[in-house]
Amino acid sequence: MPATPGAAPPLVDQHCHSVVASELSSSAFASLLTESDRPPAPGATPWDGALGLAVRRWCAPELDLPAFASPEAYLERRRELGAAEATRRLLRRSGLAACLVDTGLTEAAGVPLLTPDELGGLAGADVHEIVRIERVAELATPGTTAAGWSDAVRSALRRATRHAVGLKSVIAYRHGLDFDPARPSAAETTRAAGEYLDEGGGRLRHPVLLRQLLWEALELGLPLQLHTGFGDPDLTLHRTDPSLLTDFVRAAEPLGTPLVLLHGWPYHRQAAWLAQAFPTVHCDLGLALGHVGTGARRVLAETLELAPFHKLLFSTDAYGLPELYRVGAAAFTDALDSWLAEAVPVPAEAARIAGLIGGGNAQKLYKLPAVDSVSR
Amino acid sequence: MPATPGAAPPLVDQHCHSVVASELSSSAFASLLTESDRPPAPGATPWDGALGLAVRRWCAPELDLPAFASPEAYLERRRELGAAEATRRLLRRSGLAACLVDTGLTEAAGVPLLTPDELGGLAGADVHEIVRIERVAELATPGTTAAGWSDAVRSALRRATRHAVGLKSVIAYRHGLDFDPARPSAAETTRAAGEYLDEGGGRLRHPVLLRQLLWEALELGLPLQLHTGFGDPDLTLHRTDPSLLTDFVRAAEPLGTPLVLLHGWPYHRQAAWLAQAFPTVHCDLGLALGHVGTGARRVLAETLELAPFHKLLFSTDAYGLPELYRVGAAAFTDALDSWLAEAVPVPAEAARIAGLIGGGNAQKLYKLPAVDSVSR
Amino acid sequence: MPATPGAAPPLVDQHCHSVVASELSSSAFASLLTESDRPPAPGATPWDGALGLAVRRWCAPELDLPAFASPEAYLERRRELGAAEATRRLLRRSGLAACLVDTGLTEAAGVPLLTPDELGGLAGADVHEIVRIERVAELATPGTTAAGWSDAVRSALRRATRHAVGLKSVIAYRHGLDFDPARPSAAETTRAAGEYLDEGGGRLRHPVLLRQLLWEALELGLPLQLHTGFGDPDLTLHRTDPSLLTDFVRAAEPLGTPLVLLHGWPYHRQAAWLAQAFPTVHCDLGLALGHVGTGARRVLAETLELAPFHKLLFSTDAYGLPELYRVGAAAFTDALDSWLAEAVPVPAEAARIAGLIGGGNAQKLYKLPAVDSVSR
Repeated sequence: MPATPGAAPPLVDQHCHSVVASELSSSAFASLLTESDRPPAPGATPWDGALGLAVRRWCAPELDLPAFASPEAYLERRRELGAAEATRRLLRRSGLAACLVDTGLTEAAGVPLLTPDELGGLAGADVHEIVRIERVAELATPGTTAAGWSDAVRSALRRATRHAVGLKSVIAYRHGLDFDPARPSAAETTRAAGEYLDEGGGRLRHPVLLRQLLWEALELGLPLQLHTGFGDPDLTLHRTDPSLLTDFVRAAEPLGTPLVLLHGWPYHRQAAWLAQAFPTVHCDLGLALGHVGTGARRVLAETLELAPFHKLLFSTDAYGLPELYRVGAAAFTDALDSWLAEAVPVPAEAARIAGLIGGGNAQKLYKLPAVDSVSR
Repeated sequence: MPATPGAAPPLVDQHCHSVVASELSSSAFASLLTESDRPPAPGATPWDGALGLAVRRWCAPELDLPAFASPEAYLERRRELGAAEATRRLLRRSGLAACLVDTGLTEAAGVPLLTPDELGGLAGADVHEIVRIERVAELATPGTTAAGWSDAVRSALRRATRHAVGLKSVIAYRHGLDFDPARPSAAETTRAAGEYLDEGGGRLRHPVLLRQLLWEALELGLPLQLHTGFGDPDLTLHRTDPSLLTDFVRAAEPLGTPLVLLHGWPYHRQAAWLAQAFPTVHCDLGLALGHVGTGARRVLAETLELAPFHKLLFSTDAYGLPELYRVGAAAFTDALDSWLAEAVPVPAEAARIAGLIGGGNAQKLYKLPAVDSVSR
Repeated sequence: MPATPGAAPPLVDQHCHSVVASELSSSAFASLLTESDRPPAPGATPWDGALGLAVRRWCAPELDLPAFASPEAYLERRRELGAAEATRRLLRRSGLAACLVDTGLTEAAGVPLLTPDELGGLAGADVHEIVRIERVAELATPGTTAAGWSDAVRSALRRATRHAVGLKSVIAYRHGLDFDPARPSAAETTRAAGEYLDEGGGRLRHPVLLRQLLWEALELGLPLQLHTGFGDPDLTLHRTDPSLLTDFVRAAEPLGTPLVLLHGWPYHRQAAWLAQAFPTVHCDLGLALGHVGTGARRVLAETLELAPFHKLLFSTDAYGLPELYRVGAAAFTDALDSWLAEAVPVPAEAARIAGLIGGGNAQKLYKLPAVDSVSR
């Protein structure tokens, strides 16, 4: 993927969600600037954090405002332009050649998300699908029996992934990464499915079924993304340390299925070691780079202490707001450029490494069609 | 809390201890420069660390010496001036408008500490009290029965906090933060109190009583500070990770009592996530910023990766030496200025955020009377 | 150890392994640039990481190439010069006055290592021996009985350490640092030895025997190095956190035997706290500084946040490639110089601290004969 002179190498966003293109209230907009799902403390606003500053830094100029315009001025200008135009500008300026969209979420702050095709159209990017396995299993559950649960889920996974390039698990939320790495026996699974069905199915949190589902997913051979590290208050941080996955990584290694550790923060160094130690393991910094603002340079540099260049992948983990695409892409590009300037003072080498991390690794891992350079 | 032009915004030190204003031997002075309570290794001195350098950097000029004067020259000049004058200078130059003093410790290196009022007088700062709950419980124990322990402790807490603005727990030392988050039943508490009384009371380490005490404290509604992260060799570091408190935070959330995670290092990123995820959680870097010397810029920046600006509070955790006030305040101010210069290149915004973290958040959280700007 | 004007202070490499001085295939060379023991993923090369860049940065000029020469050009030039000459240049330019060689490994990538004396001759450095205790125990096992195992191991340790300056344990690999800190009883040890012998002896992984061995080692009084933090895929990262050793440190404290925590990354801040809190604990960053490339400045600075200057020791943990000596020494020197420039702007003080960390601490701890300054 050689860089065309004068053009930025195409970015492949290997893990993202769709956005809302209709108007959002000020409070709905703000609620998408924090991982908290609680109302803010009295007098506080989610704008007052590193991500809020990053939106003001990188996005205000796209809406013709000076950098660091106030939140009020930003939202006013956004309404003036119209949400659709603001969304188009922000997505287009993110410089994405392709997006791998996790289709497991369909709304944000109560408002429906764009379809993946609509998203791709506005972004000017190819769109590919990542299937969230817990959601597939939940949808496949009604009408099954305990003994038939595994087969039903396996069939549903095959159907759901016919056009997908990868899978994703949120076992970090549903249980934590400290699960028993062994594949459950058929008898265990049936017993667990019975317990789950007796409770009416629904949100899948049964540890045995979550494990069984992971093992079914591994057999499909598609890259399996795993949420690790921080997220919303549903998770318990120390139970999302990717190092807790080590025995699972070992058990899964003979299958050869690629594993992609998402986010990682504040355990991104642990993810980097796993990516160096095990050929099947890859990592990204999706949710982290956008959220940490100017800290992105440090977080990326800490990851590159040990992560091999062919194992780290760019993503934004954007969700709900097109601003998160722009911020995620800008934070990544700025942080990587800063690291390369110090670590790789040879332009051609720096461009090669930037190409791998920015998109080349994803293109190869997910077997994507070739993408062209994009002008940003 | 708008900044007066030409004046530094007032700092509110939300967690500190009193100091010794009388002469200290060289070895007693040195012993207060380390978290170790053991004699130093042969040939070693606690001056030889980041905190020792920070004292030489920030405090020597206050005693009319060049920065980085030798420890010997520093101590000689300190004796020449007299401990009282040195203490006055160092405290006054820390620029504190108010101090929240943990009154649970009454001496350092075997020498009595100033009373809070004496401390405030020398520092030119308002003084408020933080009550250490384990000490209240220990003092309330003699003469109680197992069945009466809870009531006795509850009454003692109410009496002890009549004039206090907050509470503090050192369960990180007494047990570790990996405690059962559930409130103990009355029967459990009585049984545990019986065991504790049978052993003669004294230092409170019984896990059930420590938990019961925390729940009693939560009901008072005052902000509850919790030691997390590093400290002296009495604690086991990985058991002080604030993420271990997550289920307790969840269980306590309905009460609405603010929780303040102190210190955090090396788990300050974990504390920052908790502060973003849960409205009740706040954090500081008290013990850390002074101790880590020039590393304060990095530690503060790592915290601000995720901590909301209205959730981070300044403190020094100074104890014993007035030098620790000066160093704590200088390290904080330097680190925050450095972060703001990079992250918030808009002076008015930078001043607003500095005001929140330096004192405004504490003023609101602890319902303190308004303080004026101070000249430093 | 005063610095001679115009000469660098002598470096004492307190933990290293020998190197291969004969020709290596390109793939064997590359395999020594990663902690993974698996074949690289298709299309990937271990050169593409921070360590590969560091070799190109620091070593290419020693072979008369420009910095950042390509891997192919580097290996071609290395063969042209001959492995022996390249090895001599790289070792000699590492500026080592003394090496403490862990003699537990005897080959790398299937090729025999130089003897310690050969290594020292090429490096122009004094050589001292560090004995790997698990290997001694394994070699002492054949022919023993369960009841005689402890005595046999104790005798073997005494024989093996007659000329050694220190010991090393890899219990982090064989079990993890989350072992029971108590000394096993004689009956427990005999029972465990019986189980081990019934399985034919060999690689020692029995938790009871590993613990018994550690306690035998402590009694010799020589400094005991412990692997902590990252390494090859045999270990599970979160089980190598040195904080897990805290109760063992406490239990061992009365014996007074120095403990040296090696590597530490990504738990080097935890190691630094242990070194401050406990007089017996020291730490190094051996494996880390070479591997993390330009990240060495940050990793060293994070360690110096809390590590006392008389408790941190330089090492390279070089193994197999003489390049790892050159990179380890250069990364350390560059990182320390950078930290000193910021934290200690007084040349004489900076030189004193550099002397302690670079070699003075090791000289004292291992009771080494005096070394002279070396010209680099």
